[in-house]
Amino acid sequence: MTSAASTRMTDPDSEQIDRALAQSLLDGLRELSFDGVGITRLAYSPLESAALDLVEAKAKALGLATRRDAGSNLVVTLAGSNRALPALACGSHIDSVPRGGNFDGAAGVVAGLVALARLRDDGLRPVRDIQLIVLRGEESARFGRAYMGSKALFGELTETDLASKAGDTGQTLAECMEAVGVDVQAVRQGQALLNPETLCGWLELHIEQGPELTARGLPIGIVTAIRGNSRHRNIVCVGESGHSGAVPRWLRHDALLAAAELLTRMDRYWAGQVEAGHDLVITSGIFSTDPAEHALARIPGVVQFSLDIRSQNMNTINDCYRVFREECATIQEQRGVQFTLDGRLDSAPAEMDAGMVALLSEAACGLGVVSHSMASGGGHDAAVFANAGVPSGMIFVRNQNGSHNPAEAMDIDDLMVGTAVLREALRSAGQVDERPRPVGEQRT
Amino acid sequence: MTSAASTRMTDPDSEQIDRALAQSLLDGLRELSFDGVGITRLAYSPLESAALDLVEAKAKALGLATRRDAGSNLVVTLAGSNRALPALACGSHIDSVPRGGNFDGAAGVVAGLVALARLRDDGLRPVRDIQLIVLRGEESARFGRAYMGSKALFGELTETDLASKAGDTGQTLAECMEAVGVDVQAVRQGQALLNPETLCGWLELHIEQGPELTARGLPIGIVTAIRGNSRHRNIVCVGESGHSGAVPRWLRHDALLAAAELLTRMDRYWAGQVEAGHDLVITSGIFSTDPAEHALARIPGVVQFSLDIRSQNMNTINDCYRVFREECATIQEQRGVQFTLDGRLDSAPAEMDAGMVALLSEAACGLGVVSHSMASGGGHDAAVFANAGVPSGMIFVRNQNGSHNPAEAMDIDDLMVGTAVLREALRSAGQVDERPRPVGEQRT
Repeated sequence: MTSAASTRMTDPDSEQIDRALAQSLLDGLRELSFDGVGITRLAYSPLESAALDLVEAKAKALGLATRRDAGSNLVVTLAGSNRALPALACGSHIDSVPRGGNFDGAAGVVAGLVALARLRDDGLRPVRDIQLIVLRGEESARFGRAYMGSKALFGELTETDLASKAGDTGQTLAECMEAVGVDVQAVRQGQALLNPETLCGWLELHIEQGPELTARGLPIGIVTAIRGNSRHRNIVCVGESGHSGAVPRWLRHDALLAAAELLTRMDRYWAGQVEAGHDLVITSGIFSTDPAEHALARIPGVVQFSLDIRSQNMNTINDCYRVFREECATIQEQRGVQFTLDGRLDSAPAEMDAGMVALLSEAACGLGVVSHSMASGGGHDAAVFANAGVPSGMIFVRNQNGSHNPAEAMDIDDLMVGTAVLREALRSAGQVDERPRPVGEQRT
Repeated sequence: MTSAASTRMTDPDSEQIDRALAQSLLDGLRELSFDGVGITRLAYSPLESAALDLVEAKAKALGLATRRDAGSNLVVTLAGSNRALPALACGSHIDSVPRGGNFDGAAGVVAGLVALARLRDDGLRPVRDIQLIVLRGEESARFGRAYMGSKALFGELTETDLASKAGDTGQTLAECMEAVGVDVQAVRQGQALLNPETLCGWLELHIEQGPELTARGLPIGIVTAIRGNSRHRNIVCVGESGHSGAVPRWLRHDALLAAAELLTRMDRYWAGQVEAGHDLVITSGIFSTDPAEHALARIPGVVQFSLDIRSQNMNTINDCYRVFREECATIQEQRGVQFTLDGRLDSAPAEMDAGMVALLSEAACGLGVVSHSMASGGGHDAAVFANAGVPSGMIFVRNQNGSHNPAEAMDIDDLMVGTAVLREALRSAGQVDERPRPVGEQRT
């Protein structure tokens, strides 16, 4: 599949050049930020700045115009003939988690630069500007807050966000932003550093953080929505502890068996929902009897656990959550236990723009690339752009071993497939003097 | 029930005297060993010796003969007319866990002394000796080993047992035994300090460690067997961790959902077995995702848990264990996880002697006391006596809040009911020149 697609993408010489550029960018970033175990390019750190410098130098060398925006992000531009038109932007973030991998974020940066360089080399003079925006500060690992770079662009960072402290140095986000040249005054006042009306679209290529493309044997996916979620950090199930030998079943209030049955019932419900075609994932990531009192011969009196329900459809999340509460009530009644829930945390799904999804699908189709429509499980800057009103789309690139770890394993072949799709989408939409939206598109 | 039964037990004056004796013994023991929070009379400690001294002094004052055996346990005797006959013994242990309650063990000591004193006051001259044996060292809390007092009696302590160290002082069990006057040389050589042939029975009154008698509204139970068990301290379920949002259900290997389903299936099996009349309890006391890597947004890759299956019937335990292994295999196959089990630890059930059970039931019946036949969930010295070949029986006395904690809540009324049943059983069998065994008794 991949090689067949590749041959139709570009002529062999160009492909060679593009691949060499991608590889050299990835190698340069790795060399810059290898920490002995993995990759560390923390949000709003000097190393993040150095990574932006590296990309900027390469862009300049390729003859592309560069600048920094008020958020201290890097903007690379292939100028259009009508610069008054909203620009079409692509990009991703350059920062990483500590001891992470080289591809989460950077893959989209590399793809964007390779695509712009190829379009320039091909002599394209688009109608509108085509931009690569290399964002800072997407990962929550350093400040406990995600999407800082894109949120700052749209005036969405709060005082609380700005006061959050770096886990490594203890400096505030505001201090770290200031140090790398962000207009913190504007950010603090909630000013949009980027007017969403000046963009007609945002296309983000990112490695897949799950195993689905690998399992399906496909190099890329086209994202239809970023899943929202409902979460509880801590649900406590209180029963009654007792001697494991001395309490007969009819007198037990075993907190563990109650919580285990709850999860088993939710798992069964989940299987049914998926079979019915609904997008849904359910996870209890943390689950434990009480280490302060649990013992081999003691009936568990307390269990604590977390819950994370995700879907690209908020109705599906709400339906699932309602069933969860009903199951809690049923099990409480049947087993004489009590479930106590901390605050429900909701995050709405972010739908990708139907026009952008169509643009990417058509680009893939034109290249003979079979792509897969899929939801994104993790959050991305694209959700911030989408919620700010910028029509957004995402390309996922097959990647093994998940993300946020040094074992991220994206194949350069797959990156080149994704890059070609991104490039053709930019080429096609950059030449049209209209916001690319199909009739009948709905955004809910 | 209780008061109606009481009126038939003894004349009111005797009842008053017995109750006052019981109360003063319990008060004396509490005063001696109250630690500010609960009761602490550790195995083979000076305080345990002081408690034996207290009981011995009271026995002497009541005109009963006393001595210490080679295990430094206290033996109180109401001499029979034919001292060559095997004696009928009752008793329990005097030690407690740290910060425990006053009744676990001591209730049976008090009941025995009150019963012997009443029989003596009533002028009974039994055919055989009737003994109260006040045992040391039943609780495992100090040395990590249980039933040391009774095991020493029957030559069952190993070198490893004797070398085990006290959690509080670091002294070995042998050193602590030596310090309180045990013939450690004989113990070390595995000599029986007590020839089981010299006893025709062992009757142990003990507080119930579960809530069943309270739930049934009955003051006492008659134990039919002490449950055995099969255990695993640590079962590891290994699946595959991953991003909670990014992995669809069909590609998950969630270790938690697998283990939760396993427990839910075992719970359903258990309910069926109980409904079918089998004695069975199943407990997973310790259960946890991996604290080193679990997180709200992470699919659990590893879960560790314990398992404790108990029944008074080893066949029931083995059937349950077989189903457990089958369910592991099924879930492994269905969910792509792996269960790894540490060594299976088995402890055989100890059946109470049918003759002794009948003796106690008849005594209760004669007093108009409704008793309940039940299994003992916890282990007791009676299991050691039974396994050494001494026909054994147990009376459970209703007790709230479980045992091994300062909140143990036995009512003195209930203790007096149990004491009366014990006394009448001793009176009846002490006057018969034959080992009380019904025809057709089987010991398996």
